[in-house]
Amino acid sequence: MSTVEAPAALSELRGRLAELSDLERAVALLRWDQETQMPRRGAAERGEQLATLGRLAHERLLDDRLGELLENLRAHEDALAPDDDEASLIRVTRRDREKALRVPPAMVAELARAAAEGETAWREARAQSDFALLLPALRRNLELRREYAACFPEAARPYDALLDDFEPGMTSAQAQAVLGPMREGLVALLEEVQASGTSLSRGPLHGPLPVERQRAFVADVLRALGVDAGSWRIDEAPHPFAIALAGSDVRLTTRYNEETLDSLFAAMHEFGHGLYEHEIAPALSRTPLATGVSSAVHESQSRLWENFVGRSAGFWRWCFPRLRAAFPDRYERADSQVLYRAANVVAPSLIRVSADELTYGLHIAVRFELELALFDGALDLGDLRDAWNERYRSYLGIEVPSDADGVLQDIHWAAGMFGYFPTYALGNVLAGQLWERIATDIPDLDERFGRGDFGSLREWLREHVHRYGRKLTPAETIERAAGGPLDAAPYLAYLRAKLAPLYGL
Amino acid sequence: MSTVEAPAALSELRGRLAELSDLERAVALLRWDQETQMPRRGAAERGEQLATLGRLAHERLLDDRLGELLENLRAHEDALAPDDDEASLIRVTRRDREKALRVPPAMVAELARAAAEGETAWREARAQSDFALLLPALRRNLELRREYAACFPEAARPYDALLDDFEPGMTSAQAQAVLGPMREGLVALLEEVQASGTSLSRGPLHGPLPVERQRAFVADVLRALGVDAGSWRIDEAPHPFAIALAGSDVRLTTRYNEETLDSLFAAMHEFGHGLYEHEIAPALSRTPLATGVSSAVHESQSRLWENFVGRSAGFWRWCFPRLRAAFPDRYERADSQVLYRAANVVAPSLIRVSADELTYGLHIAVRFELELALFDGALDLGDLRDAWNERYRSYLGIEVPSDADGVLQDIHWAAGMFGYFPTYALGNVLAGQLWERIATDIPDLDERFGRGDFGSLREWLREHVHRYGRKLTPAETIERAAGGPLDAAPYLAYLRAKLAPLYGL
Repeated sequence: MSTVEAPAALSELRGRLAELSDLERAVALLRWDQETQMPRRGAAERGEQLATLGRLAHERLLDDRLGELLENLRAHEDALAPDDDEASLIRVTRRDREKALRVPPAMVAELARAAAEGETAWREARAQSDFALLLPALRRNLELRREYAACFPEAARPYDALLDDFEPGMTSAQAQAVLGPMREGLVALLEEVQASGTSLSRGPLHGPLPVERQRAFVADVLRALGVDAGSWRIDEAPHPFAIALAGSDVRLTTRYNEETLDSLFAAMHEFGHGLYEHEIAPALSRTPLATGVSSAVHESQSRLWENFVGRSAGFWRWCFPRLRAAFPDRYERADSQVLYRAANVVAPSLIRVSADELTYGLHIAVRFELELALFDGALDLGDLRDAWNERYRSYLGIEVPSDADGVLQDIHWAAGMFGYFPTYALGNVLAGQLWERIATDIPDLDERFGRGDFGSLREWLREHVHRYGRKLTPAETIERAAGGPLDAAPYLAYLRAKLAPLYGL
Repeated sequence: MSTVEAPAALSELRGRLAELSDLERAVALLRWDQETQMPRRGAAERGEQLATLGRLAHERLLDDRLGELLENLRAHEDALAPDDDEASLIRVTRRDREKALRVPPAMVAELARAAAEGETAWREARAQSDFALLLPALRRNLELRREYAACFPEAARPYDALLDDFEPGMTSAQAQAVLGPMREGLVALLEEVQASGTSLSRGPLHGPLPVERQRAFVADVLRALGVDAGSWRIDEAPHPFAIALAGSDVRLTTRYNEETLDSLFAAMHEFGHGLYEHEIAPALSRTPLATGVSSAVHESQSRLWENFVGRSAGFWRWCFPRLRAAFPDRYERADSQVLYRAANVVAPSLIRVSADELTYGLHIAVRFELELALFDGALDLGDLRDAWNERYRSYLGIEVPSDADGVLQDIHWAAGMFGYFPTYALGNVLAGQLWERIATDIPDLDERFGRGDFGSLREWLREHVHRYGRKLTPAETIERAAGGPLDAAPYLAYLRAKLAPLYGL
């Protein structure tokens, strides 16, 4: 295609991608509404609506005409710089389409069915705390995911094909090279903490903290972080999430429980996800580039706000007076240091979602190593529970008393979701690298937090991470933002630096 | 097509219509969310999402394959009883499709553009209270609507084609035959009321009534009417509406103002719309039959609950203790009769949306007669304001002091919506006929309301109106439910019977 013809093809491409984007955003609204607003008995028809719109979006991606346009635009793409918006649009669309084309429609349907059946089986198995009840459905999901991985024979290991759906371009070997040292470093640091003899209390973060006042308090904190009512919403959902219906329509959810202040950390976590989507360059809107580039990069943002900010001394100096104003009786005799310490307690526990900042990575290491072994054929599904319990003993030093609090605690595998877990820990690792660079660029960051200035951090992240959306590859995004490939050392150093004075290491 | 082949064609037809329905419900959610939940700055992308999904739905209706299927199913349809679900599905789909095919896509786009421009011009003209500012946009809308009507040359008058979009199968002559006598009867009744010398006060319905308590009170009343949280929501919107995302996912909105109890009547109005959608037979779901059959039938349901129930003596005997419990200070010295009288005050006023039950029909008569005259060529747009003011003087006995409170008060015409107004009054008329029959079938209805029993009314409406959805034609729906064609006499008799004791007529 000559450069004279390219504008027409590009214009048609953009039109088609805008339509695809509109459908995907409508699906996002159907989901958000289902989780936060929908009356219970709307569920059956909502399921049909989601299936139909999802299928229409998928058909648009597979459309032959889209393939022709992409083919016709190759010369145009090659003439542009690789990080040019148009070149990126063509490249990313081609990648999405080629991946989708590899998977037969019957397999897509079968995967969805097996996932739904697996979720049902998981609920029952967890209620009974009996892993054996999940085994048949899990085996089916594993088989199907193997068939799915076989659609991508260029992958060195089947697991690589699964990981690529969440972390495009990353191999399991690369993930191992980051998460192996991370796990070793965390185990060593945990031993140091446990050997210190110091014991801190989470008590100050416990209630009773009336839910109505938590709502107002969380909204107050989020407003200071950057949530304005013109572009954001905060709602409640049993499993908190963030979703963007447009760059300027971002919706966070959290959950409240009178017993703890977890609502705050969940909200800050989702704020990190939401801010990423909010700050993507408006020029990319209504294209496939207008979302986060990978799960790990997304997770780096959520964990950065939840942990690096939300468990920092500066944050608590600023936040504590607000907390006391919201709950005067509860915090009459506390101070910001008491809250700072409570937010940084290290205590190995059974459940991933309530783990502390240090041991969280060990929960992930268990899952990543086990799912990798399953797909490498080194572990049989029948031995999964024992292998799980053994690793919890080895890495976290705790005994798993039941399947419900062990191998059955997460829904991911039951829903056929293999390859996602490592991105949680990769996100922590990347956040550690970003934090190191931010500290160089904004040396007085903690002081800024102390006076409620979160704008300089937001601006740094926008400039170095958010604005690109999916324009760069994940590897390039990480390279530019972190100054190199993923590396666990800064994260381990950050944790040690924080915990050393608290635990007298 | 032989009856052997019909099942395959029907199955494909149902699949296509389910997809169309899912798209339309997604559009409904995008709209509901826009009016009730969306952050302000989400508006621009939301507009794109709405346009895209609306277009995709429209394309599905126009699809050649749908036409083939409908053609192939003619013999099958003819072999069925006319009110068989399948025959109705084929007939209604064909009707919808053939109407849509008559209008060139360029005209559809042009109508949408002119409507949007008209709305903008209307806001400005109303702010300035200057009808002349709206004239150019209004003229353009009128011209386009004439061109639209010309797509249906079988219509005896252009206006018939417009009316048919809201009241399928009804002609303007039929509407005149109902609304003419209605207007005469209302004018005569208004004269009687005004000659009575009795003057009642709306004061008891005025505040201050704290909004927070109004919310709880309205929710309490709606719960008793039949709104359960498993299938319904109540939200707030500046212009109240009801929308169904499924038969078991119905969403009402109302608006609160500390100065009045209008929130209650608006909520009961929307409940009537919502209940209709909620009670349609589940067998019709995900088909074009799963919605109300016409605007007039829909409006009969909203006005029946707002006025026939909400301004009845029995309702107020039941409701008053709840009202007093919600606002003890305000209603310490009142009683149910005081509220009943306040809810039935007749007082000619300028604004349609706040009109009383009697004069409301006169506001509609003005609009219907004027828009009919415009399309018949009997009235020039330049004379519309004078004609408006003259009719308000003649029917309601009041002088219109400004365009903003006169011809500019409604957005409908500015948005190209001609042919809708009469259905408001036709709904009142139909509600009067239904009420007469209900009184025969449930003679102790008012006593039932007095003890909070609204279930027997709900059941009557479900049985005689709601369950059919669009399965029958509007005329057949009305015939079966009301026992004959539209007739203003029962409505006039109902009003007179209620007002006579109140005003000593």
